[in-house]
Amino acid sequence: MNSDATPWIAELVNLLGGDAVLSSDEDLVPYSFDGTAALKQRPACVVFPRSTEDVAACVKLARRYDVPVVTRGSGTGLSGGSVPLTGCLVLCLVKLDRILEVDPRNLTLRAECGVITKEIDDAASGHGLFYPPDPGSMKISTIGGNVAENSGGLRGLKYGVTRDYVMGMTVVLPDGEIAWLGNKCVKDVAGYSLKDLFIGSEGTLGIITEVLLKLLPKPAARRTMLAMYDSMEAAAETVSAIIAARIIPCTLEFLDRMTLGCVEDYAKIGLPTDVEALLLMETDGHPAAVEDEANRMMEIARQNGAREVKMAADEAEGARLAAARRNAFSALARVKPTTILEDVTVPRSELAAMVKFINETASKYRLLIGTFGHMGDGNLHPTFLTNEKDEEEMHRVELALGEIVEKTVSLGGTITGEHGVGLAKKGFLKQQFGRVSYDLLKLVKKALDPAGILNPGKIFD
Amino acid sequence: MNSDATPWIAELVNLLGGDAVLSSDEDLVPYSFDGTAALKQRPACVVFPRSTEDVAACVKLARRYDVPVVTRGSGTGLSGGSVPLTGCLVLCLVKLDRILEVDPRNLTLRAECGVITKEIDDAASGHGLFYPPDPGSMKISTIGGNVAENSGGLRGLKYGVTRDYVMGMTVVLPDGEIAWLGNKCVKDVAGYSLKDLFIGSEGTLGIITEVLLKLLPKPAARRTMLAMYDSMEAAAETVSAIIAARIIPCTLEFLDRMTLGCVEDYAKIGLPTDVEALLLMETDGHPAAVEDEANRMMEIARQNGAREVKMAADEAEGARLAAARRNAFSALARVKPTTILEDVTVPRSELAAMVKFINETASKYRLLIGTFGHMGDGNLHPTFLTNEKDEEEMHRVELALGEIVEKTVSLGGTITGEHGVGLAKKGFLKQQFGRVSYDLLKLVKKALDPAGILNPGKIFD
Repeated sequence: MNSDATPWIAELVNLLGGDAVLSSDEDLVPYSFDGTAALKQRPACVVFPRSTEDVAACVKLARRYDVPVVTRGSGTGLSGGSVPLTGCLVLCLVKLDRILEVDPRNLTLRAECGVITKEIDDAASGHGLFYPPDPGSMKISTIGGNVAENSGGLRGLKYGVTRDYVMGMTVVLPDGEIAWLGNKCVKDVAGYSLKDLFIGSEGTLGIITEVLLKLLPKPAARRTMLAMYDSMEAAAETVSAIIAARIIPCTLEFLDRMTLGCVEDYAKIGLPTDVEALLLMETDGHPAAVEDEANRMMEIARQNGAREVKMAADEAEGARLAAARRNAFSALARVKPTTILEDVTVPRSELAAMVKFINETASKYRLLIGTFGHMGDGNLHPTFLTNEKDEEEMHRVELALGEIVEKTVSLGGTITGEHGVGLAKKGFLKQQFGRVSYDLLKLVKKALDPAGILNPGKIFD
Repeated sequence: MNSDATPWIAELVNLLGGDAVLSSDEDLVPYSFDGTAALKQRPACVVFPRSTEDVAACVKLARRYDVPVVTRGSGTGLSGGSVPLTGCLVLCLVKLDRILEVDPRNLTLRAECGVITKEIDDAASGHGLFYPPDPGSMKISTIGGNVAENSGGLRGLKYGVTRDYVMGMTVVLPDGEIAWLGNKCVKDVAGYSLKDLFIGSEGTLGIITEVLLKLLPKPAARRTMLAMYDSMEAAAETVSAIIAARIIPCTLEFLDRMTLGCVEDYAKIGLPTDVEALLLMETDGHPAAVEDEANRMMEIARQNGAREVKMAADEAEGARLAAARRNAFSALARVKPTTILEDVTVPRSELAAMVKFINETASKYRLLIGTFGHMGDGNLHPTFLTNEKDEEEMHRVELALGEIVEKTVSLGGTITGEHGVGLAKKGFLKQQFGRVSYDLLKLVKKALDPAGILNPGKIFD
């Protein structure tokens, strides 16, 4: 870290103009954290570049002064990936906010990294197209952050995640050089897939400043259903039976009893609060297929012990039912001062076992954990409702989290399904990867960023 | 290269047994080439490992003796990726041929790298599932080769390519260490996506010995149609109009007049030979959706000037019509002694312009070029019918190829859509990537394989 910070900040002011540089204590406060609970560190300076060239110039300067660089967009990250390092330079990329092109013939959209994810989908929508990845934060998160974290969402089983929609990118490398990777071709096998290395690299290998995204024709119809169960196993069996019936719905989300209670208390949707699991199901596509699939899914839910199944009469009612799931995090977050949102993920077949283990662990450590998530993806969000000021309770949270992660790995799962490793999970990464693969990760970082300038200390030490 | 070859070959015989090692001149002949025209080099030795551990031991031994290693499966590659280097060790992985698991609950299949691609799909089929990537060579190519080359196929637009179906792999690294990458989770963002680095790396970064593949439920219905046109533009317009109508068919393949003539001459399907373009269209999925989409596709083809449109009455007739496209390469290959199968790829919107340019280039250089390919993907197969013994003609082929590649890059395309770079295309790679991205490719190779032991001289020098 540089001890005499003034000269490089002065150079940044020179480079980008005084209104694009923040360095006073009070200005830095809102950039000291992201969406991750209990993580906070003060940068030396925050700058707002307006172009790829600005970003490249900042990186070159930071390298010259040996100042670490942390990139952020809207700061909605849930693993501390955009939490600054003390004394670092934060590049806040929200001013690179232009949608550059929508190309309906090639089903692509090109945008700068600071565009809000929802605006991408809105722009596609104007052409009868859609951008499938829909992370929970899509109304505020930036597309650059989504790509850097390889964000998931509620439609993973059918439509995949952010990675599946990135066809190209402009990336500023750790030496300040600018690389363009990818093109509008549906098939391309020229050279290594370098873009896949940057997608999900959490700002540690390069800074993504522009993206070329793949779009899809908007599905002509959609049906939304809710099913209520007296056991989580029955909900999980429903999901397996739907897939065995050759149906791949776009959404198969669940809420456990505790989450359901919080949601109903918060949003007054009129849901029963005495059921063990609620399953939100959506199918989309061709109207005739959707109609048939929706009816079969309702029937399968009943056959697998659903206490009650209801179908939304129209899009508006569908959106109201889906709100139960969309509100889950906000509803849980109201209960206690600190909300730790986990995202351990297991093979789909192990989901019911994992939920059971989480509930047992909550009892064992006397903790409040509400669990919801993507049942079709095996992606769970056990949410710890706690208080970071209560040291004794936080210690129990830590022990419980350790056991949950260990169980996840033993079931063939991953320590993070969609939130990233960042600072929050780096202690667990080696356990999942094993020595050889873990060393390979470090080797790639070392090769691409030998000076260790980009987001050092994230993912691994 | 090692000048005293005997000791390391003797060690290999010790390690794997005499029946797993070939080193006599006549035994080496069939392993001196792959499916690529005009490329041939004699290895020092070919071995047939039976396990990942065998492969790792071979790599360690090769490294100790500084002998380059070239991996191959069935040798169907079309860019020289599995052509040996003179004096190298060839690892032929066809004996790693076990399907290890089909897991219908998680929609996955685990197999060793030497399993024939079609056997993967057959095994999936037994569970009502399917493996979508269907490269032309799928009846003989191995899944390991498909993954190493990131093979495409006829269903790219709707179902993507091999990369989209690889969830995990065992890979032997250039130092002989064994890494496992990936898992059965639908979502996983832990660490860099190293598996994506190995997919399509053409045997230059590691040796893939086992793969975990994603399967899909088998579509319940399929419809096959043919449309005949008096101009390639009209066929291309049909494709654009279908997509604009929010239909994503599984297949949109085309044949030009010359290819059509050769196919009809070869297979006697009863196709007209006086049309400029034939479009093979298939839609699959829910029966009601397929019926409706097929009718709309026929209507769109007529509206866009198709001279004739026909729909197959059933699966058998559909397969017969599809055979026109499946036979294209074999039919063209009969015409002249040497067949050079290209696979330049452009954004879909540029396909008609690219076909026109190829025809002009064929006239300019007085060459026979038949063109067919994946119209929905912008993936063309201009096929040069020539004679490698005719030096003067081969010179014209080289000039024409250079112009076609240059045009491809200028249209925002890629020098290879599905065949790989290997030896055949490495001269063109820098042109597509530009200096910064090209240097990044080399940096990755250097980091992972510092001794340059795996497939040296492939992709780049």
